[in-house]
Amino acid sequence: MRRKEQDIAAGAPHASRLASRPVKITNATRPLTIEVEAINERGERVPTPIAGEHPLTLYIDKREIVTLMTLGQAPEALALGYLRNQRLVRSIDEIAEVQVDWDTDAVAITTRTALLNLDEKMQKRTVTTGCGQGTVFGNLMDEIDAIRLRDDITLSEATLHTLLDNVRRHETIYKSAGAVHGCALANGSGEILLFIEDVGRHNAVDAIAGQMWLNDIGGSDKIFYTTGRLTSEMVIKAAQMQIPFLVSRSGLTQMGHDIAVKTGITMIGRAVNKHYLLFTGVQRFIKPAA
Amino acid sequence: MRRKEQDIAAGAPHASRLASRPVKITNATRPLTIEVEAINERGERVPTPIAGEHPLTLYIDKREIVTLMTLGQAPEALALGYLRNQRLVRSIDEIAEVQVDWDTDAVAITTRTALLNLDEKMQKRTVTTGCGQGTVFGNLMDEIDAIRLRDDITLSEATLHTLLDNVRRHETIYKSAGAVHGCALANGSGEILLFIEDVGRHNAVDAIAGQMWLNDIGGSDKIFYTTGRLTSEMVIKAAQMQIPFLVSRSGLTQMGHDIAVKTGITMIGRAVNKHYLLFTGVQRFIKPAA
Repeated sequence: MRRKEQDIAAGAPHASRLASRPVKITNATRPLTIEVEAINERGERVPTPIAGEHPLTLYIDKREIVTLMTLGQAPEALALGYLRNQRLVRSIDEIAEVQVDWDTDAVAITTRTALLNLDEKMQKRTVTTGCGQGTVFGNLMDEIDAIRLRDDITLSEATLHTLLDNVRRHETIYKSAGAVHGCALANGSGEILLFIEDVGRHNAVDAIAGQMWLNDIGGSDKIFYTTGRLTSEMVIKAAQMQIPFLVSRSGLTQMGHDIAVKTGITMIGRAVNKHYLLFTGVQRFIKPAA
Repeated sequence: MRRKEQDIAAGAPHASRLASRPVKITNATRPLTIEVEAINERGERVPTPIAGEHPLTLYIDKREIVTLMTLGQAPEALALGYLRNQRLVRSIDEIAEVQVDWDTDAVAITTRTALLNLDEKMQKRTVTTGCGQGTVFGNLMDEIDAIRLRDDITLSEATLHTLLDNVRRHETIYKSAGAVHGCALANGSGEILLFIEDVGRHNAVDAIAGQMWLNDIGGSDKIFYTTGRLTSEMVIKAAQMQIPFLVSRSGLTQMGHDIAVKTGITMIGRAVNKHYLLFTGVQRFIKPAA
């Protein structure tokens, strides 16, 4: 039985997956802001909300994989989405448990059957993408040629306006504390299904990928919105999730543009209020005749 | 013989190090923007500059270490700064050559004597910080307690204003194409010595670290400015470079704040024009009596 998309509470991971093989999962959201004192230019002491940031060390079947720095809004979805986007796990059905424990800053993931070739995958990952900075570029570029996004679907300018209006009205950590990036998944009407913020662009998109798995949401008829820049890895990840529409408040890079051209994704940058720049995949975008 | 700081051309790596043991080095800056076509909300086709983004695979003594995605403004300094900030190399004197070849998207670093314990360092790096997302947090947190920043030095509000004015007037890729972060190193008068932009915050700060090595610039009397957020790894890296003043246009995170408190660094966020928020290390900041 598939969980219906309209039942999903945006922004919150749910405690179990309503599928044939449920995942045993915690729901360990952290407090997302704390207040510290600052002194402003008038010499006044002002209480200032700042975004949380916590190390979260990810273990698969007791093997340590990575330490992510996260806001902690959706740590279970983040862990799952990290494994998904790094291509370490191919299906949510491989996962039995996701248990976050903030006493030890750890998330323990238990698979149904031990993952094949984990050592080999980790080795390749290290060599081709490295730590601290790299992207999943190395492995994923190989897969780009195989991506086919739907071409029987369109996005109207009116729907884009609806999406941007929904994003603008969404309550966010960014509005109160800044220092985070947000990602949203919207349906074909521009309604926000999922909204995640995190201290890094990578984490926010990975957490969305994890929530899509947990909620059995496919990407092929969705819109992906991000406050962050459209760099190579952002475009790759959206295309890997089969999402045909990618919208950003920010700009893009040369390789983001190259990959958008290759995958044929419909990519829109600088999207704020009524303004936007449509870069690629123009055949899916519908604008009323003037 | 030490290269004098006033001789340094801001933003450009120089071709050799004026020290007792010169580094043989390329100067392979890429074109920083390209122009693509976009369609705006009025249906007009508009030429749009976008920031470059290129993979750069880093080899030490022919061993592949990491692939970084970079704007390509200062690839040699980026490679050196990456090795410095990842603690894979302890001194510029260990380096004989840095050769960037964009035909193969590679930078080959040759050491004077093979690096000790590289395998062990790489292993620790993989396990504790991971790839694609993590920070150098794992290794560097251990070193925080040993950091002692100078306390016989101050920053006046007037110097902060000078710095922010210099940053505002600096020609940048950000102004033309967006989608990049900038970092600057300034002297005690607020004059910009080095200015680097890159597609990631990590890369920009690493490239500054590399240029400081190449130009024999110490950090203990400098100001570090970044357009990016003050997350944990940004504060750690500044403190590791012995820089007592850290200024950002953006906000900060909880762990960035925690580390700033621990290291005693003077940290200023939301610094734009005359506005700023002074968070930590207030004893080094001088404001005239009203």
